[in-house]
Amino acid sequence: LDYQHVQVPFEITLWIMLASLAKIGFHLYNKLPSVVPESCLLIFVGLIMGGIIYGLNDRSPPVMDSDIFFLYLLPPIVLDAGYFMPSRPFFENIGTILLYAVVGTIWNVFGIGFSLYGICQVKAFRLQDVSLLHNLLFGSLIAAVDPVAVLAVFEEIHVNEKLHILVFGESLLNDAVTVVLYKLFRSFCEMPTIKSVDVFAGVGKFFVVGLGGVLVGLSFGFTAAFTTRFTKDIRVIEPLFVFLYSYLSYLTAEMFHLSGIVAIISCAMGMKRYVEANISLKSHTTVKYFMKMWSSVSDTLIFIFLGVSTIGENHEWNWPYICFTVIFCLVWRALGVLVLTFFVNRFHVNTITSKDQFIIAYGGLRGAICFSLVFLLPDFHRKKLFIAATTVVILFTVFVQGMTIRPLVDLLAVKRKRESAPTVGEQIHIRFLDHLLAGIEDISGHWGQYYWKDKLEYFNSKYLQKILLREYDQPKSSIVLLYEKLERKHAIELAQAGQLGHGLAHPSFLSSDRTVITDQKLEDTPNPDVLDNMQEILARNLYRIRRTGPAYNRHTLPGDSEPTERAKEILILRHKSL
Amino acid sequence: LDYQHVQVPFEITLWIMLASLAKIGFHLYNKLPSVVPESCLLIFVGLIMGGIIYGLNDRSPPVMDSDIFFLYLLPPIVLDAGYFMPSRPFFENIGTILLYAVVGTIWNVFGIGFSLYGICQVKAFRLQDVSLLHNLLFGSLIAAVDPVAVLAVFEEIHVNEKLHILVFGESLLNDAVTVVLYKLFRSFCEMPTIKSVDVFAGVGKFFVVGLGGVLVGLSFGFTAAFTTRFTKDIRVIEPLFVFLYSYLSYLTAEMFHLSGIVAIISCAMGMKRYVEANISLKSHTTVKYFMKMWSSVSDTLIFIFLGVSTIGENHEWNWPYICFTVIFCLVWRALGVLVLTFFVNRFHVNTITSKDQFIIAYGGLRGAICFSLVFLLPDFHRKKLFIAATTVVILFTVFVQGMTIRPLVDLLAVKRKRESAPTVGEQIHIRFLDHLLAGIEDISGHWGQYYWKDKLEYFNSKYLQKILLREYDQPKSSIVLLYEKLERKHAIELAQAGQLGHGLAHPSFLSSDRTVITDQKLEDTPNPDVLDNMQEILARNLYRIRRTGPAYNRHTLPGDSEPTERAKEILILRHKSL
Repeated sequence: LDYQHVQVPFEITLWIMLASLAKIGFHLYNKLPSVVPESCLLIFVGLIMGGIIYGLNDRSPPVMDSDIFFLYLLPPIVLDAGYFMPSRPFFENIGTILLYAVVGTIWNVFGIGFSLYGICQVKAFRLQDVSLLHNLLFGSLIAAVDPVAVLAVFEEIHVNEKLHILVFGESLLNDAVTVVLYKLFRSFCEMPTIKSVDVFAGVGKFFVVGLGGVLVGLSFGFTAAFTTRFTKDIRVIEPLFVFLYSYLSYLTAEMFHLSGIVAIISCAMGMKRYVEANISLKSHTTVKYFMKMWSSVSDTLIFIFLGVSTIGENHEWNWPYICFTVIFCLVWRALGVLVLTFFVNRFHVNTITSKDQFIIAYGGLRGAICFSLVFLLPDFHRKKLFIAATTVVILFTVFVQGMTIRPLVDLLAVKRKRESAPTVGEQIHIRFLDHLLAGIEDISGHWGQYYWKDKLEYFNSKYLQKILLREYDQPKSSIVLLYEKLERKHAIELAQAGQLGHGLAHPSFLSSDRTVITDQKLEDTPNPDVLDNMQEILARNLYRIRRTGPAYNRHTLPGDSEPTERAKEILILRHKSL
Repeated sequence: LDYQHVQVPFEITLWIMLASLAKIGFHLYNKLPSVVPESCLLIFVGLIMGGIIYGLNDRSPPVMDSDIFFLYLLPPIVLDAGYFMPSRPFFENIGTILLYAVVGTIWNVFGIGFSLYGICQVKAFRLQDVSLLHNLLFGSLIAAVDPVAVLAVFEEIHVNEKLHILVFGESLLNDAVTVVLYKLFRSFCEMPTIKSVDVFAGVGKFFVVGLGGVLVGLSFGFTAAFTTRFTKDIRVIEPLFVFLYSYLSYLTAEMFHLSGIVAIISCAMGMKRYVEANISLKSHTTVKYFMKMWSSVSDTLIFIFLGVSTIGENHEWNWPYICFTVIFCLVWRALGVLVLTFFVNRFHVNTITSKDQFIIAYGGLRGAICFSLVFLLPDFHRKKLFIAATTVVILFTVFVQGMTIRPLVDLLAVKRKRESAPTVGEQIHIRFLDHLLAGIEDISGHWGQYYWKDKLEYFNSKYLQKILLREYDQPKSSIVLLYEKLERKHAIELAQAGQLGHGLAHPSFLSSDRTVITDQKLEDTPNPDVLDNMQEILARNLYRIRRTGPAYNRHTLPGDSEPTERAKEILILRHKSL
């Protein structure tokens, strides 16, 4: 037995296997996931496993490594979120989302930090040694809403699209603010004196970190799109580029201390439409499937690790501090949402209702990002207190808020997501209105979102598409693409129902068939002309079958290697035969 | 800049990116790959990169880590090979393949080992200090034909299926022999005295290593098939299980010092038919695509690393030893093939022609497995000589033999792979003959391959399918499956050519359309009955469109979540309308 040799890949594979099996297990009992969110179940599994490890070894189980979290587990989830982000609601509400993400997070950080400092001044609590800076540092890591936790809960409760994008978008974009504030306060903690210059530099950093992330992401995204222009001959490695470039954008951003989350989201959103047009249908299926698969596994592992890491002896229980942290997190978020929404509603026709405000405030779940950040804190004597408080906040938000938010949504009758997607007619009208509004904005000299969208679209079709798309001369409208997709689906369904081959595909065959029956009734012998006709039709339609079959090749999938010429020829043949 | 933090994933991603871009580059110039095999080009790229690194740093570039090779790069290639292995020719020729793989490899090891020992006795060559055991150890690592190198060359020259499977099957299955002999001689080198017991134990180990690998592989394969029975509700993680279980089988086999290659091949071949029946069509596309992608990237990386590692100062050039190694590799392989084929041909009706024998002997390429094994040798004073000899043998076989084998195949007019796959008629006849032969064998009491195949098929449909398949009560014959696949393809083509919607899918619409034209000619106003008819058809066929549209969910792909009930309902609706 040589376990040492295979230990690393073996244990990684086993952890992933455990996560996947846990997922299957939950879904076998259909009732469970409809009551308790999957994230809670996974944390619970983690807690049990942590307990077992703790019981067997009599020492704290291994804690989730912050490096593993930030370098390997977080990127797939964020990539998936960015790639499948519904872009229209996102950009329509970008102003509100940014307001919540930037101003709201700053508000929370300072609110929680200062009020916890106030608590520390109460002598009875024995917390006088926690300085203001440490409280602010703690505030900066506990204030950030976690995209992984938010996604896990919100995708199960099906609230309306705007509400969903407000909470989810905020949780993604507040990364830039969190990174800046966390690093700022951490460096302040290590400095002997703080000059006002440093504070101003910190404010400037917001823009560098956020916009830098966007720039890094977009440049990698466009490079990815450009690369897929040239993959026509080796389709099998197309999906790879989507993953490689997005991951590189994340790593590059992290390397330069920019926001990796913002970078990977920009990369995914930037490349999506071009890559989709360039790569083959099968590659696209693979990309989508693998993204879902990876993010699903990462997400499962994160929650299990969160559970495992909770067990152990690295906690210092100071009840007043921990309880007040939970309360302040709730109160300051609620206040922040109220105040910010008041301003947002004054400038918007489509206001955010008070029910929606409540769900936004209540949906501010904390998760693994806080947890990883608190372990990355420099060692100081109260670190264990911070760890304990963070753990409690995470468990409270995920379990209590996560489990009660669905009944609350039902109780308040929050507007749900419309079950059916917009019809083609609606889509045409929406697009028409967009053009109209862009025209009105242009005439009235108001540079609103429709004006900019129109300009971007023009720039895209004029320059970007020519560079990034393989077949740029035939830009298809998305309605035509949707139609093609529906036709394909329809065709597959028909084929699966066995209807295509027998009657539908060959109307000429159908009609000749009828002739045969008629002829047979009349003469009781098949007409030689009819037989010739049938043979001809069969000869045409069997062309393809003769060519199909397995052939081993490592670089292509069976069926991929056939030259398109032949397919075209067959289609022409068929077209003639109909 | 914080490069340290992201170094590991960043460099891995960059290497994979380089490999993928190199692949794209070669395929941009279509003429190059048709003359020079891709493996040669990649080694050449590696040589250049190694030269640059050597020139810049003035020290040897990093050598390919044997652990990385065996744990991360080799498994994807072998998994791909096993999963897409054409099982019929493989099992038809299993006897011959095993003879080549076991007896042939032992023959080569001892042939090369003893004759090199003979060379070492010549005083002029100054090699007297290389003992017989060291020569045998070297023989055991240099004798094994490399599956990666063989695949890279043979999939481009399209020889007939039997010849291909003989060389490729041998290269896969000789792993068990190589592992045993290599470890045996290495432990002998470290022992003070060798008892005859040790030699017998070595012979016994062959069976343990080979059959153990098969057992480990099959048990993981069946577990994988069993697991996919329960993934109906979470389709996105289905592909994961295929990869996880195969990789676990490889790692487990390596852990117990069994043959990992044999294990992963058994696992892939054992699970394939059950997994394919259990998982969804999209999951299956993803599995196939990702397997091809991973193996393609691994293969590229291996050849590039091979090139990079060649440059450097860890070589000891002793020309006689190196030249004689190359010569002995060629001669002993040629002799072995001749002798073994003589025996094989006496017992088979379908003989191996002398042209085929030449290609089998000439196609014995060496590759990265030898290279990794030689670096794993325990340190002794002549290790650098062995490294140099191995490098030369690999470069000679890949460049000289790899580049000349295609012209030779053309020149000798070796029987090629039939371009077209067997027709359905042929397949039915083949299957009929199988049953007939199984019956004849059963009656005559001869337990040949058809008898065993029939028994296995019976056991499979009687027990295995019931346990491993989700819907075991409806086993579809492979001809029906092929037919369904062709229908699906046909339907997609029709949809892409835009023919489905306009005429084919709705013959009732077509006919009513004709009526409209006739009516209009007669009356010049549309008939209200016809309009009603059209509206009815539209109402039916637009049902689906109203339901389709994007909806974000992390665990499902758009379109997956629709209940099958609805799809069925639509199909029934459509069926009625036709």
